[in-house]
Amino acid sequence: MDDILQNGHKLLHPGLSVDCVIFGFHGNQLKVLLLRMKHAAQWALPGGFVRKEEDVDDAAVRVLQSRTGLEDVFLRQFYLFGEVARSEPNLNGEMMVRQGKAPDQDHWLRQRFVSMGYYALVDFQTAVPRPDPISDACAWWDLQQVPVLALDHSQILAKALETLRRQLTYQPIGYNLLPEKFTMPELQKLYETILNKALDRRNFQRKMLGYGILKRLEERKSGGAHKAPYLYSFDKERYQLALQDGLQQGW
Amino acid sequence: MDDILQNGHKLLHPGLSVDCVIFGFHGNQLKVLLLRMKHAAQWALPGGFVRKEEDVDDAAVRVLQSRTGLEDVFLRQFYLFGEVARSEPNLNGEMMVRQGKAPDQDHWLRQRFVSMGYYALVDFQTAVPRPDPISDACAWWDLQQVPVLALDHSQILAKALETLRRQLTYQPIGYNLLPEKFTMPELQKLYETILNKALDRRNFQRKMLGYGILKRLEERKSGGAHKAPYLYSFDKERYQLALQDGLQQGW
Repeated sequence: MDDILQNGHKLLHPGLSVDCVIFGFHGNQLKVLLLRMKHAAQWALPGGFVRKEEDVDDAAVRVLQSRTGLEDVFLRQFYLFGEVARSEPNLNGEMMVRQGKAPDQDHWLRQRFVSMGYYALVDFQTAVPRPDPISDACAWWDLQQVPVLALDHSQILAKALETLRRQLTYQPIGYNLLPEKFTMPELQKLYETILNKALDRRNFQRKMLGYGILKRLEERKSGGAHKAPYLYSFDKERYQLALQDGLQQGW
Repeated sequence: MDDILQNGHKLLHPGLSVDCVIFGFHGNQLKVLLLRMKHAAQWALPGGFVRKEEDVDDAAVRVLQSRTGLEDVFLRQFYLFGEVARSEPNLNGEMMVRQGKAPDQDHWLRQRFVSMGYYALVDFQTAVPRPDPISDACAWWDLQQVPVLALDHSQILAKALETLRRQLTYQPIGYNLLPEKFTMPELQKLYETILNKALDRRNFQRKMLGYGILKRLEERKSGGAHKAPYLYSFDKERYQLALQDGLQQGW
């Protein structure tokens, strides 16, 4: 840490950071991954700096891995937070003061930073976070219970959630979040959880089947109610195509 | 220009540029706005640097205005071009050499730059470009005839076009590009021009009417064929809502 404070300007691309919003879903719960740095009062998104010799997209993957332990996460760019005001008051600098450092006004960490936002949606049960050495906690938070975050991270989280919700209208979602075979109500619950609202059962089913990304299986869900619901799985080829071209399969 | 070369590092956010992909539509033609700098062999997208005291989104608007004369363009972020390789070979530096300058290896302009891409779609007939003092040409190019561009601008253009085409599947388009009253074939032609492919007339009409953003007018198009086609206009309120929530009006 001391080395980075002293030599960061030689190693890092100036004035550029990345912040990762990792949403986690499992069993009808939607969470977000947050970190709390040692000596810090507030929780924050996992973020960090970009090395001089590193693609920005690669930096996001490395930062996420090194700060939270999460690997193999497919991160998407969603927005560059480029306002001047986000670096004032200079909370990076203040944090350093709290940690007993007193950086000069022209210290690299006190300069203006723009931050590239990345997001992903993973199964939080298989993604077990561990904090890095400069943090004392790394945890999945219920979205409803997230406190006010450090810096402008509350806005970054809000924008990511908006992006994730919009994504539902034109891209498929659910692969790796649901069991391989799932029922229509389970898929609907995923959408309802992300959107935080109830959806009409029949409309949902009609719309979802219309996308042509589901295969209805021969077997039905055993146990449970008198009429066992159908089981579905994703048609991986069509799912992949819809990821690429959009759910409407273009025009 | 000399002042910027000498003092740019004091005025500008380091290592960050913006590039604008401005698509122009009018009368079934799709074009893109390109600049050619003096002494430069290749055409390029209008781009520039971000000032220390300037939001990145504002920088894009200012850069576009100052380099091409285009005002009041609503620019959207679409991708951060953050690869290391895009700054090697250092074409900024090479261009300066061609212009008779010989910048040091550590000159600010020879450092690595990441570039935020912005795009917009405007009516090219009402948007008349004029080159800035460092360029000798600024013109609308037919998309089919665009030459290989400077730097990585060919890739930036390709990515913007991909984004614009994907946008058609989840956001309305056409306001300010079509006359206030237009026919369904005119609207279809806009889509076909952007997608560069023919669409089925009946499917197009069904899908488009399904979005609920059009008002069919009482009057019909006069003149022309034996059966005059209906005229439509956008329902501005619903159009605005669809811009915000997506054409499917969310879930």
